Amino acid sequence: MTATPAASRVPQDEGPAPRGAPGLDRLRDVLGEVADLERAAAVLTWDQETNMPPGGVEDRANQLATLSRLAHERFTSSEVARLLESAGAEVASMPAESDEASLLRVTRRDFGQAVKVPAELVSEMARAAATARPVWQDARERSDWSLFVPAMQVTVDLSRRLADALGYEERPYDALIELTEPGLTTTRVEELFGRIKDASVPLVHAIDRHRDRVDDAVMARPCDERRQVELARETIACLGYDLDRGRQDLSVHPFCISFGPGDVRLTTRTGATFRDSCILSSIHEAGHAMYEQGVPRSLDRTPLSRGASPGLHESQSRLWENMVGRSRPFYGWLYPRLKGAFPESLDDVEAEAFWRACNAVRASYIRVDADEVTYNLHVLLRFEIENDLLEGRLAVADVPEAWAARVREYLGLEQPPDREGPLQDIHWTGALGGFVGYSLGNLISAQLMAAARRDLPGLDAQFEAGDFAPLLGWLREHVHRHGRKFTPDELVERATGSPITAEPWIAYLGEKFTGLYGL
Amino acid sequence: MTATPAASRVPQDEGPAPRGAPGLDRLRDVLGEVADLERAAAVLTWDQETNMPPGGVEDRANQLATLSRLAHERFTSSEVARLLESAGAEVASMPAESDEASLLRVTRRDFGQAVKVPAELVSEMARAAATARPVWQDARERSDWSLFVPAMQVTVDLSRRLADALGYEERPYDALIELTEPGLTTTRVEELFGRIKDASVPLVHAIDRHRDRVDDAVMARPCDERRQVELARETIACLGYDLDRGRQDLSVHPFCISFGPGDVRLTTRTGATFRDSCILSSIHEAGHAMYEQGVPRSLDRTPLSRGASPGLHESQSRLWENMVGRSRPFYGWLYPRLKGAFPESLDDVEAEAFWRACNAVRASYIRVDADEVTYNLHVLLRFEIENDLLEGRLAVADVPEAWAARVREYLGLEQPPDREGPLQDIHWTGALGGFVGYSLGNLISAQLMAAARRDLPGLDAQFEAGDFAPLLGWLREHVHRHGRKFTPDELVERATGSPITAEPWIAYLGEKFTGLYGL
Repeated sequence: MTATPAASRVPQDEGPAPRGAPGLDRLRDVLGEVADLERAAAVLTWDQETNMPPGGVEDRANQLATLSRLAHERFTSSEVARLLESAGAEVASMPAESDEASLLRVTRRDFGQAVKVPAELVSEMARAAATARPVWQDARERSDWSLFVPAMQVTVDLSRRLADALGYEERPYDALIELTEPGLTTTRVEELFGRIKDASVPLVHAIDRHRDRVDDAVMARPCDERRQVELARETIACLGYDLDRGRQDLSVHPFCISFGPGDVRLTTRTGATFRDSCILSSIHEAGHAMYEQGVPRSLDRTPLSRGASPGLHESQSRLWENMVGRSRPFYGWLYPRLKGAFPESLDDVEAEAFWRACNAVRASYIRVDADEVTYNLHVLLRFEIENDLLEGRLAVADVPEAWAARVREYLGLEQPPDREGPLQDIHWTGALGGFVGYSLGNLISAQLMAAARRDLPGLDAQFEAGDFAPLLGWLREHVHRHGRKFTPDELVERATGSPITAEPWIAYLGEKFTGLYGL
Repeated sequence: MTATPAASRVPQDEGPAPRGAPGLDRLRDVLGEVADLERAAAVLTWDQETNMPPGGVEDRANQLATLSRLAHERFTSSEVARLLESAGAEVASMPAESDEASLLRVTRRDFGQAVKVPAELVSEMARAAATARPVWQDARERSDWSLFVPAMQVTVDLSRRLADALGYEERPYDALIELTEPGLTTTRVEELFGRIKDASVPLVHAIDRHRDRVDDAVMARPCDERRQVELARETIACLGYDLDRGRQDLSVHPFCISFGPGDVRLTTRTGATFRDSCILSSIHEAGHAMYEQGVPRSLDRTPLSRGASPGLHESQSRLWENMVGRSRPFYGWLYPRLKGAFPESLDDVEAEAFWRACNAVRASYIRVDADEVTYNLHVLLRFEIENDLLEGRLAVADVPEAWAARVREYLGLEQPPDREGPLQDIHWTGALGGFVGYSLGNLISAQLMAAARRDLPGLDAQFEAGDFAPLLGWLREHVHRHGRKFTPDELVERATGSPITAEPWIAYLGEKFTGLYGL
């Protein structure tokens, strides 16, 4: 069941002698085709979530399966193996940070991983994901984890087989992390997450004793849904999201998707009150979208032409959502606009009160509704449970108890019903390892923001004046323009002077919330 | 420059001995992939016309080029050649009209044509089309044919090369017709079009002398655009267009596009008056869409899983638009709805008067605005000019004069400015031969309608009562369910008892318009 290693696929025939960089040029052509197939699949996915009529399900599944299979076949072909070899000589003298050397380095890493995973395992995982989805929906509806246990067991087994196929030195989770956040390890993530836990659990409990110090009743007031969408669109355009290279639509779950830097779309959903309005979630998605819009054309149609990793991507969405969109200065600019759009709800509310309300902390069961203080704890408990499952310390049937123990310790809450416990996310239908990027993103967002504040002293005054171009320019220069050239640690170190670290986030959180709650 | 003929590509190795129909099964798999690629390209095209932001142009062109190249490569591969051979034995004993034998017959024809056209010619044509488009736009804007002459010369030369590559017995146009309307020839089309000309030119001139007998002033009255779209949607849903397997959107030019029978979309455009409202154009596109929705799943993801030809397709759109949507009984049902939607414009107008107004005949320069009587004459003159160009009887520079002579003879109009003459359509940017289906479609629509009336005696009363299911059922049974299994003549003969003929259309036209104008 082991895949043919890349090296053994390389034919000896190198073709005609190189002129200029024919290997690299041809490699770019093939990678361009793969990118076109992936981007076409992205258009089909966007359409599926926003426009497709119910009758389209069967045809669309066929089309997406064919596109992803062809992209995979093209990328893992012997031609790519040969071109990676021949292009190696052509870029040997170029600096590691050049576009060319980076293209080869990253493509080799992707190729090495792709050829290690047997085709049968890829299709088993796709099938398992498709099979598990309705099972999960049913189990969630009935709030009964036991119904989901067999599907979850398949997810765990497949994730172990995936880790074995990819290979790892110490722990199976290392292989899964290397796929998405190359250079990081399970142990390193545990250390970072440990720092998060040590800082936030006491804060959660301290805030819980002084809940009454922030009144968030205004968040339950009504908020016209059409005006939400308009105001969200105007707001993200002011932040720097280019609507000539994107658009905003409605969908059941908000997401951002790129078909190339000239067309990066986001979706949103509305709710009847300020608490579930689409404004902050649109800012979040616009953070993702501005990242993709900022990847330069010089990297286009290659494995470098997107954000560096899920963690880096989440750093951009969370930076704009939290460090900007939940900051006090931002409400100096936004709040008059909010009040203008919803006078009947906000007439008697001052900016300061609204800002306090939308930063209220309240431990709850649902990750996607969590505030800045508790959010990471939801991620941490999933990461811990996934490791325990992968390393055989926890049986699938016992997940609800393991969940309950952590919810009690971290959030001070009783055991939730399964629906609001381990059945709340779709992520466990098919694979483990999908949560790490969320908390890494929070850490990186604070680290980047601290560095941006060092370089750009007047940021808060700019936010208050509605001038977000300096911050966006800084992110373009230090993050976006590199696309996927560097690993998360390399990129963060280039931007901030240090690899990923928890200190800036801990400092940010402590300062903001001890202040807000007067602790 | 000649392509490798299909037969010489067939390797001798037939693989393992057949069990069941392994050749046919594998052929279906490969054809399914090709269909998925083509349908994915259709989704990207639809998105381009309805949703894509301006920044998406460059990326989208790359994606579409890659998808169509891969579909072509996959379809013309040596594997398909081999499978067409091995499946031949498997279907040898099946009747010619079976799905299996039809699949093989039609795929062989497509394959034979596809491998005859050199890849260079395909890409030259694509490039020429892309290059000619802005030249045409500029020439049309300045109303100056001479600016378009070089691009048109390329179109003519490429069409001749295409005809030579495909091969023909008598006339170069035969090769172009065989591509889209297999089984028909230039001479046969000339005969049919000659009958059209003989019947309609005298009618045009007779009507012109009695123009005042139909008052169409009401068509210039205002017609709220949002309500147009709503009423059009309700109307096509009543006709039988399934909105659970499709949707209606706005675009600059109305079109219908299929991503499979479960998702067939149409677009429309609105105007400020009844004359340019979207209701009849939506019925037209719904005619195309109901055809694609009616192709059975058993033919899915093969070259049979779409309408039989452009002519047959146009027969469906024109049947619903004209034979239903411009018929007197239909206004018994539609007109109260129209009046309800636009009371301020229609309060003082009776159904009979509105029906007469929307059937007014007036010779004009623009094909897409033409009435039922003059429409075909626009097509005929283009067909004649294309043949004269291909066969060297006419120089590209002299097209406006050739156009003017025919406009005078057929329509009784003076020479138009080039903008409203030979520069009005986009069709001549890249290839000739795109107009034949429009008039064939008109002929076939009348022939099918006459047959349907024989089989279903109460049709007019049903239209008046808003019951369109019997007619749609008849079309499903006699046309839609066959997909692309039969040639246009074969299909029309199965449905009506005779190959394509002009008589039913001539009878329909004469009866309707001599009555309307009291001639």
